[in-house]
Amino acid sequence: MASEGKIVEHPKKAFGWAARDSTGVLSPFNFFRRETGEKDVAFKVLYCGICHSDLHMSKNEWYNTMYPFVPGHELVGVVTEVGSKVEKFKVGDKVGVGYVIDSCRSCQNCDDNLENYCPKYTVTCGAKYRDGTITYGGYSDSMVADEHFVIRIPDNLPLEVAGPLLCAGVTVYSPLKYFGLDKPGLHIGVVGLGGLGHMAVKFAKAFGAHVTVISTSPNKENEALDHLGADSFIISRDPNQMQAAIGTLDGIIDTVSAGHALLPMIGLLKTNGKLVMLGVIVKPLELPEYALLAGRKLIAGSTVGGIKETQEMIDFAAKHDVKPDIEIVPIDYVNTAMERLAKADVRYRFVIDIGNTLKESS
Amino acid sequence: MASEGKIVEHPKKAFGWAARDSTGVLSPFNFFRRETGEKDVAFKVLYCGICHSDLHMSKNEWYNTMYPFVPGHELVGVVTEVGSKVEKFKVGDKVGVGYVIDSCRSCQNCDDNLENYCPKYTVTCGAKYRDGTITYGGYSDSMVADEHFVIRIPDNLPLEVAGPLLCAGVTVYSPLKYFGLDKPGLHIGVVGLGGLGHMAVKFAKAFGAHVTVISTSPNKENEALDHLGADSFIISRDPNQMQAAIGTLDGIIDTVSAGHALLPMIGLLKTNGKLVMLGVIVKPLELPEYALLAGRKLIAGSTVGGIKETQEMIDFAAKHDVKPDIEIVPIDYVNTAMERLAKADVRYRFVIDIGNTLKESS
Repeated sequence: MASEGKIVEHPKKAFGWAARDSTGVLSPFNFFRRETGEKDVAFKVLYCGICHSDLHMSKNEWYNTMYPFVPGHELVGVVTEVGSKVEKFKVGDKVGVGYVIDSCRSCQNCDDNLENYCPKYTVTCGAKYRDGTITYGGYSDSMVADEHFVIRIPDNLPLEVAGPLLCAGVTVYSPLKYFGLDKPGLHIGVVGLGGLGHMAVKFAKAFGAHVTVISTSPNKENEALDHLGADSFIISRDPNQMQAAIGTLDGIIDTVSAGHALLPMIGLLKTNGKLVMLGVIVKPLELPEYALLAGRKLIAGSTVGGIKETQEMIDFAAKHDVKPDIEIVPIDYVNTAMERLAKADVRYRFVIDIGNTLKESS
Repeated sequence: MASEGKIVEHPKKAFGWAARDSTGVLSPFNFFRRETGEKDVAFKVLYCGICHSDLHMSKNEWYNTMYPFVPGHELVGVVTEVGSKVEKFKVGDKVGVGYVIDSCRSCQNCDDNLENYCPKYTVTCGAKYRDGTITYGGYSDSMVADEHFVIRIPDNLPLEVAGPLLCAGVTVYSPLKYFGLDKPGLHIGVVGLGGLGHMAVKFAKAFGAHVTVISTSPNKENEALDHLGADSFIISRDPNQMQAAIGTLDGIIDTVSAGHALLPMIGLLKTNGKLVMLGVIVKPLELPEYALLAGRKLIAGSTVGGIKETQEMIDFAAKHDVKPDIEIVPIDYVNTAMERLAKADVRYRFVIDIGNTLKESS
């Protein structure tokens, strides 16, 4: 272990794109991955989604990025090697890895299949792994992970859309399930129509909900209703529209990661309504506590999902044809894609075509 | 109906103590109550608890008090008359009325036995009743109410302790039940050790929880542990004690009605932990949203309980010997009691001995 002073050197050559500092600019990067251990699955990466947190972490905006930083935690591909004790996978299987690549495996959260809430969980890119090395993500040609953290991609799900489900997908699926917002006929609001929000609309519709998109942008109405299949649309800056919708929603999935007022959202909830926050908002928000009392309402937070639930989610998505809307880009477009993502100029997820465009000479 | 311009005059003489303005000073007051309608139960008031909201409303601190204000929504007594269509009660029964004396009886909340969240619910004192008159509370010799809003007091529960259960009791019982914090073996925190807090300790113990009292006052430790039966005690201003308790609680019942920091409380919660706020805090609190995300935690509000649940609560209290700690006072002590209550100088609930001390000549 590195913590004991031993320098870990991995033997298997790998290649990807990395940010070297907080400019966040990505460029080609040679590195090494570990041998395939007895419980490990190694796979060739074919596609990797670009999550908004890749952008934050490339620029060290959460102050914990370890450089060189190879982003990517929505990666899918085909198994190339399995360890001697691997039970669930074989060479040729279609697999993926999401936000979490390791956890302690012994705490209550891990016992409860909530690896994502394990105090010692390790994210797939930019964190310190248990052997002391830095975790390198999916903007790269290969991956190796303990089979526990590997997700099987259903055969009928196109591989290029599977990646974003592993992070954005489970991030919205998990709270809809856990907070009981997955029952047919419920009225569900979705705040913010980006990578997470558009998946929230699709999963809520797949659960049989009446879905209302709440947005600051009037020009998203057609998109929400006609393209994504939402049932209604509210412009949050229009007091009349907000007033008319007071007390109509059983739950709200709030995907906005900038500070915003909670009182109008709480007002839209019915008695026992639930406002679930998914965006990481660093600055404290104003909480009108009395508004929670009048109707036994709650505000909760949720972050991705456990491994078992991620598998359940992707199986559900394959069965019910829930797919993210993606724009496939080559690896050498990645810095431009990041710039566009920063301006929310994507409908709704970039996916890098790693298999066809990542070349060591690029 | 008063709203149609007709002046309602009630025929039955009644006597109590009322505040006349925002000084909040109470003095003797003659008034009238309605005839006992066909669905009504009339009863002689014997005891009435003094809730902290009586103090707030006497002084119009919530800006909605209707004067003259006869406080009291923790009243119990003996039935003197029942209407022709009353099914549940007969003369001589021991009964009580809590915070809610009327609701629309036709909305979803009423259908769900959540009269306390009905948008048109009427509180027992200081509000406008459906006939246009002001509701007068239990600091008085008699009460009349639709039987739907009348609670049966179990025979083995002393009448003098029953009143505070009808408000303070159900206010803590309801969220413990609704949020699943009533399971044996859970670790429950109670913030604030007043009228609500001491009942929260007692109900949580009756449910089989390990109860931790969290208080700013070191001098409440013996009281919490030795007298109320809590299992542990944390001084919230002691960083070491708070640090040692991080991630140990399944739920917290927060009874404090002044502004306070939420982050330390959220930190005490386990994954999926629930912070339930019961105090009415008018000024917005600071919500560290990110702290909810790291552990799928929630903050909720809750207010008293529905009629069906209030009956369930008081039956449970009688069966499990859950009783408030009270100080019985005569009616002419009520202004002094209010002053002491404002200084939290009561362990833990004043109850006015209406039956023996309220006389029209007093």
